[in-house]
Amino acid sequence: MSPSTSATSTPVRRPGGRSARVQEAVHTALGRLMGETTRDKITLRQVAERAGVNPTSVYRRWGDIDTLMEEVAVAALTRDGDVIPDHGDLTADLNDWAGIIAEDITRPQRVRYLRAMVSARDLQVDNCPCMDIRQQQAELMINRAIERGEPAPTSQQVLDHVVSPLYHRVTFGLPVDRDYAVRLVSDVRAMASALTNAGRREH
Amino acid sequence: MSPSTSATSTPVRRPGGRSARVQEAVHTALGRLMGETTRDKITLRQVAERAGVNPTSVYRRWGDIDTLMEEVAVAALTRDGDVIPDHGDLTADLNDWAGIIAEDITRPQRVRYLRAMVSARDLQVDNCPCMDIRQQQAELMINRAIERGEPAPTSQQVLDHVVSPLYHRVTFGLPVDRDYAVRLVSDVRAMASALTNAGRREH
Repeated sequence: MSPSTSATSTPVRRPGGRSARVQEAVHTALGRLMGETTRDKITLRQVAERAGVNPTSVYRRWGDIDTLMEEVAVAALTRDGDVIPDHGDLTADLNDWAGIIAEDITRPQRVRYLRAMVSARDLQVDNCPCMDIRQQQAELMINRAIERGEPAPTSQQVLDHVVSPLYHRVTFGLPVDRDYAVRLVSDVRAMASALTNAGRREH
Repeated sequence: MSPSTSATSTPVRRPGGRSARVQEAVHTALGRLMGETTRDKITLRQVAERAGVNPTSVYRRWGDIDTLMEEVAVAALTRDGDVIPDHGDLTADLNDWAGIIAEDITRPQRVRYLRAMVSARDLQVDNCPCMDIRQQQAELMINRAIERGEPAPTSQQVLDHVVSPLYHRVTFGLPVDRDYAVRLVSDVRAMASALTNAGRREH
Protein backbone atom coordinates (compact mmCIF):
# COMPACT_ATOMS: atom_id res chain seq x y z
CA MET A 1 0.00 0.00 0.00
CA SER A 2 1.35 3.42 -0.94
CA PRO A 3 2.44 5.59 2.01
CA SER A 4 0.23 8.41 0.77
CA THR A 5 -2.95 6.34 0.98
CA SER A 6 -5.04 7.96 3.67
CA ALA A 7 -7.78 5.32 4.05
CA THR A 8 -7.57 1.61 4.80
CA SER A 9 -9.92 -0.88 3.21
CA THR A 10 -13.31 -1.21 4.91
CA PRO A 11 -12.67 -3.60 7.81
CA VAL A 12 -16.00 -5.42 7.85
CA ARG A 13 -17.05 -6.94 4.55
CA ARG A 14 -20.33 -5.41 3.51
CA PRO A 15 -21.76 -7.67 0.81
CA GLY A 16 -24.08 -6.24 -1.82
CA GLY A 17 -27.70 -6.96 -2.84
CA ARG A 18 -30.03 -9.21 -0.85
CA SER A 19 -27.24 -10.43 1.40
CA ALA A 20 -26.39 -6.83 2.38
CA ARG A 21 -30.05 -6.09 3.15
CA VAL A 22 -30.27 -9.16 5.40
CA GLN A 23 -27.05 -8.18 7.22
CA GLU A 24 -28.25 -4.61 7.69
CA ALA A 25 -31.67 -5.74 8.99
CA VAL A 26 -30.10 -8.26 11.39
CA HIS A 27 -27.52 -5.75 12.71
CA THR A 28 -30.24 -3.14 13.25
CA ALA A 29 -32.53 -5.67 14.96
CA LEU A 30 -29.76 -6.72 17.34
CA GLY A 31 -28.88 -3.10 18.08
CA ARG A 32 -32.53 -2.33 18.96
CA LEU A 33 -32.91 -5.46 21.10
CA MET A 34 -29.75 -4.51 22.98
CA GLY A 35 -31.30 -1.13 23.78
CA GLU A 36 -34.36 -2.88 25.24
CA THR A 37 -32.92 -5.80 27.18
CA THR A 38 -29.62 -7.32 28.30
CA ARG A 39 -27.35 -9.36 26.08
CA ASP A 40 -27.96 -12.79 27.62
CA LYS A 41 -31.73 -12.52 27.13
CA ILE A 42 -31.31 -12.18 23.33
CA THR A 43 -31.54 -15.25 21.08
CA LEU A 44 -30.72 -15.62 17.39
CA ARG A 45 -34.38 -16.56 16.76
CA GLN A 46 -35.57 -13.31 18.38
CA VAL A 47 -33.17 -11.28 16.22
CA ALA A 48 -34.41 -13.06 13.07
CA GLU A 49 -38.05 -12.35 14.00
CA ARG A 50 -37.35 -8.68 14.70
CA ALA A 51 -35.41 -8.36 11.45
CA GLY A 52 -38.19 -10.08 9.47
CA VAL A 53 -35.69 -12.62 8.17
CA ASN A 54 -36.07 -16.42 7.98
CA PRO A 55 -34.51 -17.85 11.21
CA THR A 56 -32.99 -20.75 9.22
CA SER A 57 -30.92 -18.42 7.06
CA VAL A 58 -29.83 -16.47 10.17
CA TYR A 59 -28.69 -19.72 11.85
CA ARG A 60 -26.92 -20.81 8.64
CA ARG A 61 -25.09 -17.51 8.30
CA TRP A 62 -24.11 -16.73 11.91
CA GLY A 63 -24.41 -20.10 13.72
CA ASP A 64 -24.91 -18.57 17.17
CA ILE A 65 -25.72 -15.29 18.88
CA ASP A 66 -22.11 -14.75 20.04
CA THR A 67 -20.78 -14.79 16.47
CA LEU A 68 -23.39 -12.24 15.43
CA MET A 69 -22.67 -10.10 18.54
CA GLU A 70 -18.98 -10.06 17.69
CA GLU A 71 -19.63 -9.03 14.07
CA VAL A 72 -21.96 -6.21 15.13
CA ALA A 73 -19.47 -5.03 17.77
CA VAL A 74 -16.63 -4.93 15.24
CA ALA A 75 -18.80 -3.07 12.73
CA ALA A 76 -19.92 -0.58 15.36
CA LEU A 77 -16.47 -0.07 16.83
CA THR A 78 -14.52 0.47 13.65
CA ARG A 79 -16.95 2.08 11.20
CA ASP A 80 -15.78 5.62 11.96
CA GLY A 81 -12.07 4.83 12.22
CA ASP A 82 -11.45 4.04 8.57
CA VAL A 83 -9.58 7.19 7.59
CA ILE A 84 -6.06 7.09 9.00
CA PRO A 85 -4.44 10.49 9.71
CA ASP A 86 -1.43 11.41 7.55
CA HIS A 87 0.23 14.62 8.79
CA GLY A 88 3.81 13.68 7.86
CA ASP A 89 4.59 13.32 11.59
CA LEU A 90 3.97 10.22 13.75
CA THR A 91 3.09 12.11 16.94
CA ALA A 92 0.47 14.19 15.13
CA ASP A 93 -0.90 11.06 13.40
CA LEU A 94 -1.13 9.05 16.63
CA ASN A 95 -2.63 11.96 18.58
CA ASP A 96 -5.35 12.37 15.97
CA TRP A 97 -6.02 8.65 15.69
CA ALA A 98 -6.09 8.01 19.46
CA GLY A 99 -8.34 11.05 19.91
CA ILE A 100 -10.79 9.67 17.33
CA ILE A 101 -10.82 6.28 19.10
CA ALA A 102 -11.37 7.98 22.49
CA GLU A 103 -14.29 10.02 21.16
CA ASP A 104 -15.74 7.06 19.32
CA ILE A 105 -15.69 4.46 22.09
CA THR A 106 -17.06 6.81 24.76
CA ARG A 107 -20.36 7.34 22.92
CA PRO A 108 -23.14 5.61 24.95
CA GLN A 109 -24.05 3.21 22.11
CA ARG A 110 -20.39 2.17 21.72
CA VAL A 111 -19.95 1.63 25.46
CA ARG A 112 -22.99 -0.66 25.36
CA TYR A 113 -21.47 -2.66 22.49
CA LEU A 114 -18.08 -2.90 24.21
CA ARG A 115 -19.67 -4.28 27.37
CA ALA A 116 -21.85 -6.66 25.36
CA MET A 117 -18.70 -7.89 23.62
CA VAL A 118 -17.04 -8.51 26.98
CA SER A 119 -20.03 -10.40 28.35
CA ALA A 120 -20.29 -12.43 25.10
CA ARG A 121 -16.77 -13.77 25.67
CA ASP A 122 -16.95 -16.97 27.65
CA LEU A 123 -13.83 -18.60 26.32
CA GLN A 124 -10.37 -17.33 25.57
CA VAL A 125 -9.86 -16.24 21.97
CA ASP A 126 -6.60 -16.11 20.04
CA ASN A 127 -7.34 -12.80 18.47
CA CYS A 128 -9.91 -10.07 18.61
CA PRO A 129 -11.02 -8.74 15.19
CA CYS A 130 -11.56 -5.25 16.56
CA MET A 131 -7.97 -5.14 17.93
CA ASP A 132 -6.58 -6.64 14.70
CA ILE A 133 -8.05 -3.73 12.77
CA ARG A 134 -6.53 -1.21 15.21
CA GLN A 135 -3.17 -2.93 14.79
CA GLN A 136 -3.36 -2.69 10.98
CA GLN A 137 -4.22 1.00 11.29
CA ALA A 138 -1.25 1.58 13.62
CA GLU A 139 1.07 -0.26 11.21
CA LEU A 140 0.09 2.06 8.38
CA MET A 141 1.14 5.15 10.39
CA ILE A 142 4.28 3.48 11.77
CA ASN A 143 5.45 2.34 8.33
CA ARG A 144 5.12 5.88 7.00
CA ALA A 145 7.15 7.17 10.00
CA ILE A 146 9.90 4.60 9.45
CA GLU A 147 10.11 5.64 5.77
CA ARG A 148 10.58 9.23 6.95
CA GLY A 149 13.33 8.04 9.36
CA GLU A 150 11.38 8.84 12.54
CA PRO A 151 11.87 6.66 15.69
CA ALA A 152 8.74 4.54 15.95
CA PRO A 153 7.22 2.06 18.42
CA THR A 154 6.02 -1.32 17.15
CA SER A 155 2.33 -1.71 16.29
CA GLN A 156 2.06 -4.13 19.24
CA GLN A 157 3.34 -1.37 21.54
CA VAL A 158 0.73 1.03 20.17
CA LEU A 159 -1.91 -1.64 20.81
CA ASP A 160 -0.67 -2.37 24.35
CA HIS A 161 0.01 1.20 25.47
CA VAL A 162 -2.51 3.38 23.61
CA VAL A 163 -5.46 1.22 22.52
CA SER A 164 -5.62 -1.17 25.52
CA PRO A 165 -5.71 1.56 28.21
CA LEU A 166 -8.45 3.40 26.27
CA TYR A 167 -10.62 0.28 25.95
CA HIS A 168 -9.86 -0.80 29.51
CA ARG A 169 -10.97 2.52 30.97
CA VAL A 170 -14.16 2.64 28.91
CA THR A 171 -15.22 -0.93 29.79
CA PHE A 172 -14.52 -0.27 33.49
CA GLY A 173 -16.49 2.97 33.42
CA LEU A 174 -13.50 5.24 34.01
CA PRO A 175 -13.38 8.63 32.25
CA VAL A 176 -11.61 8.86 28.85
CA ASP A 177 -11.02 12.01 26.81
CA ARG A 178 -8.69 13.38 24.11
CA ASP A 179 -6.21 14.68 26.71
CA TYR A 180 -5.84 11.21 28.15
CA ALA A 181 -5.35 9.75 24.65
CA VAL A 182 -2.64 12.34 23.90
CA ARG A 183 -0.86 11.50 27.18
CA LEU A 184 -0.77 7.80 26.22
CA VAL A 185 0.71 8.70 22.83
CA SER A 186 3.36 10.85 24.48
CA ASP A 187 4.34 7.88 26.71
CA VAL A 188 4.62 5.49 23.77
CA ARG A 189 6.72 8.05 21.85
CA ALA A 190 9.12 8.30 24.83
CA MET A 191 9.33 4.50 24.82
CA ALA A 192 10.20 4.47 21.11
CA SER A 193 12.90 7.12 21.46
CA ALA A 194 14.51 5.20 24.37
CA LEU A 195 14.62 2.04 22.28
CA THR A 196 16.12 3.98 19.33
CA ASN A 197 18.79 5.52 21.59
CA ALA A 198 19.59 2.10 23.07
CA GLY A 199 19.93 0.76 19.50
CA ARG A 200 22.35 3.62 18.64
CA ARG A 201 24.51 2.92 21.71
CA GLU A 202 24.82 -0.70 20.62
CA HIS A 203 26.29 0.33 17.23
CA MET B 1 5.59 3.93 55.46
CA SER B 2 9.10 2.53 55.76
CA PRO B 3 10.77 1.55 52.46
CA SER B 4 11.53 -1.91 53.84
CA THR B 5 7.85 -2.70 54.50
CA SER B 6 7.00 -5.62 52.26
CA ALA B 7 3.22 -5.72 52.74
CA THR B 8 0.57 -3.03 52.29
CA SER B 9 -2.44 -2.74 54.57
CA THR B 10 -5.36 -5.03 53.71
CA PRO B 11 -7.21 -3.18 50.93
CA VAL B 12 -10.77 -4.22 51.79
CA ARG B 13 -11.90 -3.46 55.32
CA ARG B 14 -12.90 -6.70 56.98
CA PRO B 15 -14.88 -5.82 60.09
CA GLY B 16 -14.93 -8.18 63.09
CA GLY B 17 -17.67 -10.08 64.92
CA ARG B 18 -21.22 -10.38 63.66
CA SER B 19 -20.67 -7.78 60.94
CA ALA B 20 -17.76 -9.83 59.56
CA ARG B 21 -19.85 -13.01 59.56
CA VAL B 22 -22.65 -11.28 57.65
CA GLN B 23 -20.16 -9.89 55.10
CA GLU B 24 -18.53 -13.29 54.65
CA ALA B 25 -21.91 -15.05 54.23
CA VAL B 26 -23.14 -12.45 51.74
CA HIS B 27 -19.89 -12.54 49.70
CA THR B 28 -19.99 -16.35 49.58
CA ALA B 29 -23.69 -16.38 48.62
CA LEU B 30 -23.06 -13.94 45.76
CA GLY B 31 -20.05 -15.95 44.58
CA ARG B 32 -22.14 -19.14 44.48
CA LEU B 33 -25.07 -17.46 42.71
CA MET B 34 -22.66 -16.09 40.10
CA GLY B 35 -21.49 -19.62 39.41
CA GLU B 36 -25.08 -20.73 38.81
CA THR B 37 -26.60 -17.87 36.84
CA THR B 38 -25.70 -14.63 35.10
CA ARG B 39 -25.12 -11.36 36.88
CA ASP B 40 -28.28 -9.54 35.81
CA LYS B 41 -30.51 -12.33 37.10
CA ILE B 42 -29.23 -11.85 40.67
CA THR B 43 -31.10 -9.63 43.15
CA LEU B 44 -30.05 -8.40 46.58
CA ARG B 45 -33.06 -10.26 48.07
CA GLN B 46 -31.86 -13.54 46.52
CA VAL B 47 -28.36 -13.02 47.95
CA ALA B 48 -29.81 -12.32 51.41
CA GLU B 49 -31.94 -15.49 51.28
CA ARG B 50 -29.02 -17.64 50.18
CA ALA B 51 -26.81 -16.14 52.88
CA GLY B 52 -29.48 -16.67 55.55
CA VAL B 53 -29.36 -12.97 56.42
CA ASN B 54 -32.26 -10.58 56.96
CA PRO B 55 -32.91 -8.82 53.58
CA THR B 56 -33.54 -5.52 55.38
CA SER B 57 -30.04 -5.44 56.86
CA VAL B 58 -28.56 -6.37 53.45
CA TYR B 59 -30.46 -3.49 51.82
CA ARG B 60 -29.37 -1.12 54.60
CA ARG B 61 -25.72 -2.10 54.30
CA TRP B 62 -25.25 -2.33 50.51
CA GLY B 63 -28.21 -0.40 49.06
CA ASP B 64 -28.18 -2.19 45.71
CA ILE B 65 -26.77 -5.25 44.01
CA ASP B 66 -24.19 -3.24 42.02
CA THR B 67 -22.57 -1.87 45.20
CA LEU B 68 -22.29 -5.39 46.59
CA MET B 69 -20.95 -6.73 43.25
CA GLU B 70 -18.24 -4.06 43.25
CA GLU B 71 -17.21 -4.85 46.83
CA VAL B 72 -16.98 -8.58 46.11
CA ALA B 73 -15.04 -7.95 42.90
CA VAL B 74 -12.51 -5.75 44.71
CA ALA B 75 -12.11 -8.31 47.49
CA ALA B 76 -11.66 -11.14 44.98
CA LEU B 77 -9.29 -9.21 42.74
CA THR B 78 -6.90 -7.89 45.33
CA ARG B 79 -6.86 -10.46 48.15
CA ASP B 80 -3.77 -12.22 46.78
CA GLY B 81 -1.89 -9.09 45.77
CA ASP B 82 -1.18 -7.77 49.25
CA VAL B 83 2.53 -8.63 49.50
CA ILE B 84 4.54 -6.23 47.36
CA PRO B 85 7.88 -7.55 46.03
CA ASP B 86 11.02 -5.85 47.37
CA HIS B 87 14.14 -7.07 45.51
CA GLY B 88 16.10 -3.81 45.72
CA ASP B 89 15.54 -3.33 41.96
CA LEU B 90 12.49 -1.79 40.30
CA THR B 91 12.53 -4.04 37.21
CA ALA B 92 12.62 -7.19 39.36
CA ASP B 93 9.87 -5.79 41.62
CA LEU B 94 7.60 -4.82 38.72
CA ASN B 95 8.20 -8.13 36.88
CA ASP B 96 7.21 -10.10 39.96
CA TRP B 97 4.22 -7.93 40.74
CA ALA B 98 2.89 -7.86 37.14
CA GLY B 99 3.42 -11.64 36.93
CA ILE B 100 1.35 -12.17 40.09
CA ILE B 101 -1.44 -9.96 38.68
CA ALA B 102 -1.34 -11.85 35.36
CA GLU B 103 -1.61 -15.23 37.09
CA ASP B 104 -4.27 -14.00 39.47
CA ILE B 105 -6.67 -12.38 37.02
CA THR B 106 -6.52 -15.26 34.50
CA ARG B 107 -7.97 -17.77 36.97
CA PRO B 108 -11.51 -18.69 35.77
CA GLN B 109 -13.19 -17.39 38.94
CA ARG B 110 -11.38 -14.06 38.61
CA VAL B 111 -12.26 -13.71 34.93
CA ARG B 112 -15.91 -14.23 35.90
CA TYR B 113 -15.65 -11.48 38.53
CA LEU B 114 -13.91 -9.10 36.15
CA ARG B 115 -16.65 -9.55 33.54
CA ALA B 116 -19.36 -9.23 36.18
CA MET B 117 -17.72 -5.98 37.30
CA VAL B 118 -17.76 -4.69 33.72
CA SER B 119 -21.41 -5.61 33.21
CA ALA B 120 -22.32 -4.06 36.60
CA ARG B 121 -21.04 -0.66 35.40
CA ASP B 122 -23.84 1.26 33.81
CA LEU B 123 -22.61 4.72 34.55
CA GLN B 124 -19.21 6.37 34.40
CA VAL B 125 -17.33 6.28 37.70
CA ASP B 126 -14.62 8.68 38.86
CA ASN B 127 -12.43 5.97 40.27
CA CYS B 128 -12.28 2.22 40.44
CA PRO B 129 -11.31 0.82 43.89
CA CYS B 130 -9.52 -2.13 42.34
CA MET B 131 -7.33 0.19 40.24
CA ASP B 132 -6.74 2.52 43.20
CA ILE B 133 -5.24 -0.40 45.13
CA ARG B 134 -2.99 -1.31 42.20
CA GLN B 135 -1.84 2.31 42.03
CA GLN B 136 -0.98 2.36 45.75
CA GLN B 137 1.00 -0.87 45.31
CA ALA B 138 2.90 0.61 42.33
CA GLU B 139 3.67 3.75 44.35
CA LEU B 140 5.29 1.69 47.08
CA MET B 141 7.73 0.08 44.62
CA ILE B 142 8.35 3.35 42.76
CA ASN B 143 9.11 5.30 45.94
CA ARG B 144 11.68 2.71 46.98
CA ALA B 145 13.29 2.94 43.50
CA ILE B 146 13.44 6.74 43.68
CA GLU B 147 15.12 6.50 47.10
CA ARG B 148 17.73 4.20 45.53
CA GLY B 149 18.23 6.74 42.70
CA GLU B 150 16.77 4.51 39.96
CA PRO B 151 14.88 6.08 37.01
CA ALA B 152 11.21 5.35 37.63
CA PRO B 153 7.91 5.81 35.79
CA THR B 154 4.98 7.44 37.59
CA SER B 155 2.40 5.19 39.26
CA GLN B 156 -0.13 6.44 36.69
CA GLN B 157 2.18 5.18 33.91
CA VAL B 158 2.42 1.77 35.60
CA LEU B 159 -1.38 1.73 35.79
CA ASP B 160 -1.83 2.80 32.15
CA HIS B 161 0.90 0.66 30.59
CA VAL B 162 1.14 -2.47 32.75
CA VAL B 163 -2.14 -2.94 34.66
CA SER B 164 -4.57 -1.64 32.00
CA PRO B 165 -3.29 -3.88 29.15
CA LEU B 166 -3.43 -6.93 31.45
CA TYR B 167 -7.02 -6.23 32.52
CA HIS B 168 -8.04 -5.27 29.00
CA ARG B 169 -6.76 -8.53 27.52
CA VAL B 170 -8.40 -10.65 30.21
CA THR B 171 -11.81 -8.98 29.92
CA PHE B 172 -11.69 -9.28 26.10
CA GLY B 173 -10.71 -12.97 26.31
CA LEU B 174 -7.21 -12.48 24.87
CA PRO B 175 -4.35 -14.60 26.24
CA VAL B 176 -2.27 -13.23 29.14
CA ASP B 177 0.80 -14.84 30.71
CA ARG B 178 3.93 -13.91 32.69
CA ASP B 179 5.95 -13.30 29.49
CA TYR B 180 3.42 -10.74 28.34
CA ALA B 181 3.49 -9.05 31.77
CA VAL B 182 7.31 -8.88 31.67
CA ARG B 183 7.20 -7.34 28.16
CA LEU B 184 4.87 -4.59 29.42
CA VAL B 185 7.24 -3.87 32.33
CA SER B 186 10.19 -3.65 29.93
CA ASP B 187 8.26 -1.10 27.83
CA VAL B 188 7.40 1.07 30.84
CA ARG B 189 11.04 0.94 32.02
CA ALA B 190 12.18 2.16 28.57
CA MET B 191 9.66 4.97 28.89
CA ALA B 192 11.02 5.95 32.30
CA SER B 193 14.65 5.98 31.13
CA ALA B 194 13.73 8.19 28.14
CA LEU B 195 12.03 10.69 30.44
CA THR B 196 15.05 10.65 32.78
CA ASN B 197 17.44 11.25 29.87
CA ALA B 198 15.25 14.10 28.59
CA GLY B 199 15.35 15.58 32.11
CA ARG B 200 19.18 15.34 32.14
CA ARG B 201 19.47 17.08 28.78
CA GLU B 202 17.40 19.97 30.11
CA HIS B 203 19.86 20.56 32.99
